[in-house]
Amino acid sequence: MAINFKLAIAVVCLAALLGCSTSNLQVAEVGSYHVGGRAVTLSGLPEKELLFTPGAPPLKLNPNGDFEVEALYTRYTLLANPKSRYPLLLWHGGGLSGVTWETKPDGAPGWENYFLRAGYSVYVSDAVERGRASWARYPEIFKSEPFFRPKKEAWELFRIGDTDSYNTAPAQRTALPGTQFPVAAFDQFAKQSIPRWGTNDPATQAAYDAYVDKVCPCVIVVHSQGGNFAFNSASKYPDKVRALVAVETSGSPNPDTFDFARVKGVPMLWVWGDNLGKFPFWGRIAAQQEKFRGNLIAAGGIGDRIVLPDVGIKGNTHMLMMDRNSDQVAGLIDQWLAKQGLKK
Amino acid sequence: MAINFKLAIAVVCLAALLGCSTSNLQVAEVGSYHVGGRAVTLSGLPEKELLFTPGAPPLKLNPNGDFEVEALYTRYTLLANPKSRYPLLLWHGGGLSGVTWETKPDGAPGWENYFLRAGYSVYVSDAVERGRASWARYPEIFKSEPFFRPKKEAWELFRIGDTDSYNTAPAQRTALPGTQFPVAAFDQFAKQSIPRWGTNDPATQAAYDAYVDKVCPCVIVVHSQGGNFAFNSASKYPDKVRALVAVETSGSPNPDTFDFARVKGVPMLWVWGDNLGKFPFWGRIAAQQEKFRGNLIAAGGIGDRIVLPDVGIKGNTHMLMMDRNSDQVAGLIDQWLAKQGLKK
Repeated sequence: MAINFKLAIAVVCLAALLGCSTSNLQVAEVGSYHVGGRAVTLSGLPEKELLFTPGAPPLKLNPNGDFEVEALYTRYTLLANPKSRYPLLLWHGGGLSGVTWETKPDGAPGWENYFLRAGYSVYVSDAVERGRASWARYPEIFKSEPFFRPKKEAWELFRIGDTDSYNTAPAQRTALPGTQFPVAAFDQFAKQSIPRWGTNDPATQAAYDAYVDKVCPCVIVVHSQGGNFAFNSASKYPDKVRALVAVETSGSPNPDTFDFARVKGVPMLWVWGDNLGKFPFWGRIAAQQEKFRGNLIAAGGIGDRIVLPDVGIKGNTHMLMMDRNSDQVAGLIDQWLAKQGLKK
Repeated sequence: MAINFKLAIAVVCLAALLGCSTSNLQVAEVGSYHVGGRAVTLSGLPEKELLFTPGAPPLKLNPNGDFEVEALYTRYTLLANPKSRYPLLLWHGGGLSGVTWETKPDGAPGWENYFLRAGYSVYVSDAVERGRASWARYPEIFKSEPFFRPKKEAWELFRIGDTDSYNTAPAQRTALPGTQFPVAAFDQFAKQSIPRWGTNDPATQAAYDAYVDKVCPCVIVVHSQGGNFAFNSASKYPDKVRALVAVETSGSPNPDTFDFARVKGVPMLWVWGDNLGKFPFWGRIAAQQEKFRGNLIAAGGIGDRIVLPDVGIKGNTHMLMMDRNSDQVAGLIDQWLAKQGLKK
């Protein structure tokens, strides 16, 4: 007995020396790749004068040639012994990139780190036109001009503060009472903004579809603008999407025409933050999402919903994963996925 | 003796059960953040008509407001028990992003995965204007137009094929004899291209300096266009940059005016692929880098060099980390860093 005890101690000590305490992630591989997209050739464009050094004469460059465009980028972290049956794909929202999932404005690690610790292999993607997915010349390839989200729009649209509560001076901004957003780090959050186009939805959908086809079976957690793409991909590959978590999704296919029978085998969960009722814009979005969810249930599917203030969790913004209590919210999602039998 | 042997076997078996076989990475945390940059306010710009759905009337959008611009993005993977004394910072080259280090065109994991396995905590960044660092409206914030690298330029400039050996049809392209580049995956590599500007060098340098100040002490491995930024940051923080590996660097500060005494305590290694002499452009760059290296040595610094064909490793392109034998090249860098006393 005494010998066994000593053996156990020795094993634990040696295990610690080997660096395999349970607080570490056991990672098999990290990497990334691009999925989808197409080749295009530009021709007949005039040479362009490009400025390299302000004040110096511009250089002439020929903009014609072959390009690869409209691919999606994804980065993966594969666990050696995942506790989930399928990897988790994290899809960002509008005007943002995969950074949404990697970090919080106060510098703490984001939901990617949380879900890795919870036992999921995790993929974090940048949609067409965003971040490492890259963007293409317009109007020749992308059909319109990009637009850039001002901080005021993010502050108010993401329900951090009320309409007209934004001010250029950080100290003069009035956040909603009891907000969970780390308000002092709002400008740090604004660095995550990425220009977007209004005309790339078909290319973005095609790349997401190719992504699901390549990587899944999987679970998708999607935020905001990404919802529409995720519902459509689930409808295209209902056997490959084993669950879909719609975090503050702002869009979906038309609930009056969508074929819910195709996705009734894909359990879905909607997660909402606080203060939806204060903003008519969000009230309309939530109502549309409720119609979609209701039709899914009516077709025999699982369409669950967590409205955080209804379960006593107050002050969450549209950027749930950035909020100070975001790990608590992630925990609810992890629990729901376990309830669907998606963990070992 | 027999008992000790049994104990050792038991420990190894239990360690395997705990999932800490030496083939797994022991990761303490993954995350990312933006560093540097500045706040700008745009005002007085007219409303813009933006197209969301081709065919439908455009929407009006006000482009004025506050923005965060010119930050650098970095992602980190921190090992629980690194074998290196300092983390490794991987800096990409021109027209590319941090993806350079994450993957190879054939889909295999890249140098980031290699160096993590070799015991380094690794940071992979996107410079100002690239990837997840994001880009800003021009000409109001960025002072010129972006440019896009055609595939022909990458094929020839990166020494995969000779001048005029590129063809739109993959089967009609003629690579240099014995190239190590995975030629069949060239179009997949081209998806990594990111638009660039010629006028952002001061902002890029400022962000890199802020990055080194925040994250280091560290070792920097830098590719191509990034070289100039890394040499300058090392000069600004010579006590924080513990070594600098210049992989096919295309630029450096002026060797006639650079203060080499400041960086003589920063060991530096230049790594070059094959076929430099076939391209006058690369011959000139290599000569300039040799002048820089010579002046460093003359000032009492360590300026080592590996020209791969000189040590019997042939066929490497400008994109060493994409080549089929790239792990062999990474191994030489790892050995050199160990020789500088930078591993435990």
